[in-house]
Amino acid sequence: MLKVAVVGATGYSGIELLRLLDNHPNVKICKVISGSTDGQMLADIYPHLTGHFSLSLENLDVVSLAKEVDLVFFATPSGVSSKYVPQLLEHGIKCIDLSGDFRLNKVEDFAPWYKHQPAAQKYLDQAVYGLSELFADQLSSAQLVANPGCYPTATLLALIPALQGKLIKPESIVIDGKSGVSGAGRGLSLTTHFSEVNENLKAYKLGVHQHIPEIQQLITKLSGEQVSVTFTTHLIPITRGMMCTIYADLQDPGITTETVVEYYQKYYHDQAFIRISPAGTQPVTKQVLGSNYCDLGFVVEPRTGKLIMISVIDNLTKGAAGQAVQNMNLVMGWPQTTGLINVPMYP
Amino acid sequence: MLKVAVVGATGYSGIELLRLLDNHPNVKICKVISGSTDGQMLADIYPHLTGHFSLSLENLDVVSLAKEVDLVFFATPSGVSSKYVPQLLEHGIKCIDLSGDFRLNKVEDFAPWYKHQPAAQKYLDQAVYGLSELFADQLSSAQLVANPGCYPTATLLALIPALQGKLIKPESIVIDGKSGVSGAGRGLSLTTHFSEVNENLKAYKLGVHQHIPEIQQLITKLSGEQVSVTFTTHLIPITRGMMCTIYADLQDPGITTETVVEYYQKYYHDQAFIRISPAGTQPVTKQVLGSNYCDLGFVVEPRTGKLIMISVIDNLTKGAAGQAVQNMNLVMGWPQTTGLINVPMYP
Amino acid sequence: MLKVAVVGATGYSGIELLRLLDNHPNVKICKVISGSTDGQMLADIYPHLTGHFSLSLENLDVVSLAKEVDLVFFATPSGVSSKYVPQLLEHGIKCIDLSGDFRLNKVEDFAPWYKHQPAAQKYLDQAVYGLSELFADQLSSAQLVANPGCYPTATLLALIPALQGKLIKPESIVIDGKSGVSGAGRGLSLTTHFSEVNENLKAYKLGVHQHIPEIQQLITKLSGEQVSVTFTTHLIPITRGMMCTIYADLQDPGITTETVVEYYQKYYHDQAFIRISPAGTQPVTKQVLGSNYCDLGFVVEPRTGKLIMISVIDNLTKGAAGQAVQNMNLVMGWPQTTGLINVPMYP
Amino acid sequence: MLKVAVVGATGYSGIELLRLLDNHPNVKICKVISGSTDGQMLADIYPHLTGHFSLSLENLDVVSLAKEVDLVFFATPSGVSSKYVPQLLEHGIKCIDLSGDFRLNKVEDFAPWYKHQPAAQKYLDQAVYGLSELFADQLSSAQLVANPGCYPTATLLALIPALQGKLIKPESIVIDGKSGVSGAGRGLSLTTHFSEVNENLKAYKLGVHQHIPEIQQLITKLSGEQVSVTFTTHLIPITRGMMCTIYADLQDPGITTETVVEYYQKYYHDQAFIRISPAGTQPVTKQVLGSNYCDLGFVVEPRTGKLIMISVIDNLTKGAAGQAVQNMNLVMGWPQTTGLINVPMYP
Repeated sequence: MLKVAVVGATGYSGIELLRLLDNHPNVKICKVISGSTDGQMLADIYPHLTGHFSLSLENLDVVSLAKEVDLVFFATPSGVSSKYVPQLLEHGIKCIDLSGDFRLNKVEDFAPWYKHQPAAQKYLDQAVYGLSELFADQLSSAQLVANPGCYPTATLLALIPALQGKLIKPESIVIDGKSGVSGAGRGLSLTTHFSEVNENLKAYKLGVHQHIPEIQQLITKLSGEQVSVTFTTHLIPITRGMMCTIYADLQDPGITTETVVEYYQKYYHDQAFIRISPAGTQPVTKQVLGSNYCDLGFVVEPRTGKLIMISVIDNLTKGAAGQAVQNMNLVMGWPQTTGLINVPMYP
Repeated sequence: MLKVAVVGATGYSGIELLRLLDNHPNVKICKVISGSTDGQMLADIYPHLTGHFSLSLENLDVVSLAKEVDLVFFATPSGVSSKYVPQLLEHGIKCIDLSGDFRLNKVEDFAPWYKHQPAAQKYLDQAVYGLSELFADQLSSAQLVANPGCYPTATLLALIPALQGKLIKPESIVIDGKSGVSGAGRGLSLTTHFSEVNENLKAYKLGVHQHIPEIQQLITKLSGEQVSVTFTTHLIPITRGMMCTIYADLQDPGITTETVVEYYQKYYHDQAFIRISPAGTQPVTKQVLGSNYCDLGFVVEPRTGKLIMISVIDNLTKGAAGQAVQNMNLVMGWPQTTGLINVPMYP
Repeated sequence: MLKVAVVGATGYSGIELLRLLDNHPNVKICKVISGSTDGQMLADIYPHLTGHFSLSLENLDVVSLAKEVDLVFFATPSGVSSKYVPQLLEHGIKCIDLSGDFRLNKVEDFAPWYKHQPAAQKYLDQAVYGLSELFADQLSSAQLVANPGCYPTATLLALIPALQGKLIKPESIVIDGKSGVSGAGRGLSLTTHFSEVNENLKAYKLGVHQHIPEIQQLITKLSGEQVSVTFTTHLIPITRGMMCTIYADLQDPGITTETVVEYYQKYYHDQAFIRISPAGTQPVTKQVLGSNYCDLGFVVEPRTGKLIMISVIDNLTKGAAGQAVQNMNLVMGWPQTTGLINVPMYP
Repeated sequence: MLKVAVVGATGYSGIELLRLLDNHPNVKICKVISGSTDGQMLADIYPHLTGHFSLSLENLDVVSLAKEVDLVFFATPSGVSSKYVPQLLEHGIKCIDLSGDFRLNKVEDFAPWYKHQPAAQKYLDQAVYGLSELFADQLSSAQLVANPGCYPTATLLALIPALQGKLIKPESIVIDGKSGVSGAGRGLSLTTHFSEVNENLKAYKLGVHQHIPEIQQLITKLSGEQVSVTFTTHLIPITRGMMCTIYADLQDPGITTETVVEYYQKYYHDQAFIRISPAGTQPVTKQVLGSNYCDLGFVVEPRTGKLIMISVIDNLTKGAAGQAVQNMNLVMGWPQTTGLINVPMYP
């Protein structure tokens, strides 16, 4: 059994990790760490965990942690893992970081988008970007995984095949993102206050979202083109679920929806977590609830020469904890789906 | 007092009309008409109306209607008003049609988007498109008003000034629409079944929505350019509220958000129902709930050279019944705001 | 025009007051007061108010306030009005307090339920309990109105007639209250955090809710019986709306639902804001949304000898700001309905 | 592997069964049956099932079914299983019926509450009521299980121990039930139309709910007392989740909450699916989402001499499909928790 710790165990990504890891046949959760709740029992903070974990929360102590576990998940806000991951790596511990601290490739890329000081370049160099379906090879030998953001996951799984297949013009991409509120975490703010969010739609962080450089970096890497993408984000009054509606100009406006769908079916043929909607249908967020699926739908619009792509994930699962577990599976050489395949909860 | 009738009084636009007209100082509701509920009292179907209306619902009889009222609102599904409005017009009755039957200018425009047979060309010629802020002059002498669709209202009020001011390139427009469920009406379907909609996001009618030709027709008319726009629609689990996020390439990528905001403030300076959000802020749908406002926000994204526009309305008010009352005010020569100004309900 | 101030203008009851007062023909809002936001413009905090108020928020200064206004609404948390209302009363200002500070009759009644120090007994003696339908006479000469809590309003309007008519046994009353989240105000807490409330049901403050003594005091006063009532409260994931389901043993188990409904219709015959659902139907919360109505429904259950009463209000309107305006009307000798009658917003 | 069929596979209880059975180590789903969708693939109707089932839906044919499977789940509306279960029993097939057709003990009990003709008395006699925690012994030898209703499950698991322990007076029981909308199934009606349900609270079936005789029958059987209970039901705008708030007079008003909590902890000591909230806390519905748990909380109210009990379940899991799987486990002699233990989904 792999001995793991979860740092940031009381955030929403943290408890989603606990839910998934509890179901994993090869893992033992040895430590749950949360700075703000040292000494409390998990079930006192989250009664839904009663009967599943008898662990009490602890403060982070790198040295003792390195002795007791093999792999550490960081489900922490920006600026935490950049401090502690390097120390753990030096102790030979594997780390999977769900925050943005290791997602950008160069130290200087962080400043315009993140407030904290990034980790040293050598650790950024060491990090493998954990978009599991596209980087399985590199991930199999990674010691440090930079788990992707939720929006980049939904966006890139839709976009990269079209770019690699030269279906679309890279400079024409517009991404309209829509997210459930759990993505904003458990921290209190007016933005997540029920009476302000419920029955409301809100665009936020227009032009300044920290997922923009992450998306651009990957598009550049995988398409070979340096592009700027328009990416906007909207807060939707649901708890879980994310949809990215992506627009791009077709290279060949004569292509059909059926051809695009077939291309994606082939592209993801051996990927258990990617499901392509039949031509004429589009995925809805609820069809992936609580699962690690990313479901994709496509429409060719001959009138405008656009390809419209719909990508849906559960922001806490494939968009965070689920993909982190998938990456652990890859790192450990286990089948990607180990402990992760389940029927989404519907309705 | 103007004597009015509401045909389709038991749909959601119909009861929103009743709510607004009940508050109007110059109007008397004389007839409420609904084919399916002939003879029932309004308050038996909608208990919230108890104490406000003692009218019973009737079937539509054009001849008797023409004797008893001066103006008729049609809040009916596609294909109804095209039959009855011509007869009422011949009787000299004013008509405001909330359906799509008179929105397109030419008979041949309907076939690709609508299933029913359109009205004769001469009636289409007679209809004035009721986007109140932009066509006040024509509306003042209209006998027949084609009240705009909800999406076109939100879209065009944002887009037209930018096109007229040559701020954006018309061929680059992408409109991502998001609507509350009341826009789908009271008819039963799985698409509006609570357990299927709640906690879910769904894109629908991609590339085939009947509001597409309406938007394109207006852009062409007001910008002088023949353009195809990408317009997609999403169903959001809220009852009321609509947001259109609109993307377009700037003619001058060096323009600032502040300049754009000032331009719109001037453009709509004397319009009571258009409110421009200060630079750096964006409107949310809830801030117009139950009101006739259309609130607009703007962001210039220098990185991509795009202008991003956020437009919010209450789909049943400014997107339907509210604008219909505003158009009645214009037709009658009353101040546009008569009976329509109220503080939105918040939270 | 009556010159009024709203203290606590940035809370949810405060902005609901502003919405209603803006629509009132006899009132001018002269001051909006909020300790935490001194100097800001109302519309900067609440964009939905844009175009309606050009007031900036001020700190509370009793002396200057007393010079500029005739009547002050307090929409403040517990413990504020008890300090300031006495001073304003001494200046001859009328006060309507939406908090609980003046609702209990005796100083000693507060300690078990409220944390703050109550006002002096003489001010409690001066306060008239503002359940408008039942105390219109006393209210007409009141200088200080203790506006009822939302739960007591919904409960007592259902319960008092049954007690006065000896329909039910006072010692058998069980009240199951269900409230929307706006009742918890705008203050941040995990209890009102979207992801914790949405798709969730929560019972809270069982046996210790501060509305219990308020309800008991009124039942005792109006029924002449000293009773303890069971009253529980549940948080429901809606923004506005409150339902109290009330159970009591019938004095005469042979009575019919129809007889009970007729009794209530007669009892409230001349009350514009009370609507009695026909026998066989029950009111839903949405049918009173944004209005000052309290709608009541009744079922006699012969099998158990119980009367079941359903009472619905909008917690921010009839449950707070609406009833406060109704009480102002009574205090000023205006018709109760002045500025308050509107069709509820539906759907 | 046990070969099973699900009749009514396209209802909400049906697909919840599929979700749970897909995860069960000892079961193979051989047939999915649904009258209305004969020949369609499951994943065409429910895209969330894509990749999990390649079964097509079939009509019910008892003879062929009896040859191919060992056990049949009926997740059908009232009146279906009463026809087909007897035939299957005669073929030696085990049946677990999630409808109400076999829940009442006597033929004559059905008429006042159900519309359909019940099964013959001998089949009612054969049925074992599947409240798993309380009837494990009888279930272990059952051929036919009458799976309890959702409300009876939540109610009885809270109530029975208190009755058996003589903590409360049976004649004083009031049950206030609150249910998510999925309990109403997938059939279309205005009652489940999004815009009518969302942001709304509705009491329904007051005094006539078919779960009343089921609850009374069990209370009588297990307490030895013939009682009538007051039981009301409310529709809450959430998809999944059910709470019953139960009120009863204490036999000994001097008992403490702590004593009650300890009593229940002992009572359910060896039951994996019952969790007792610590004194001073109450369970919320979300803490059992997607799981087979029933979580219980208790408050003694000395002021009124009442015991207040809060019981929460997921109406589709412990309230339907989860308990059905638990009953299958009991019938088959497997551990009750086989395939059923998972961390609830939170948030």
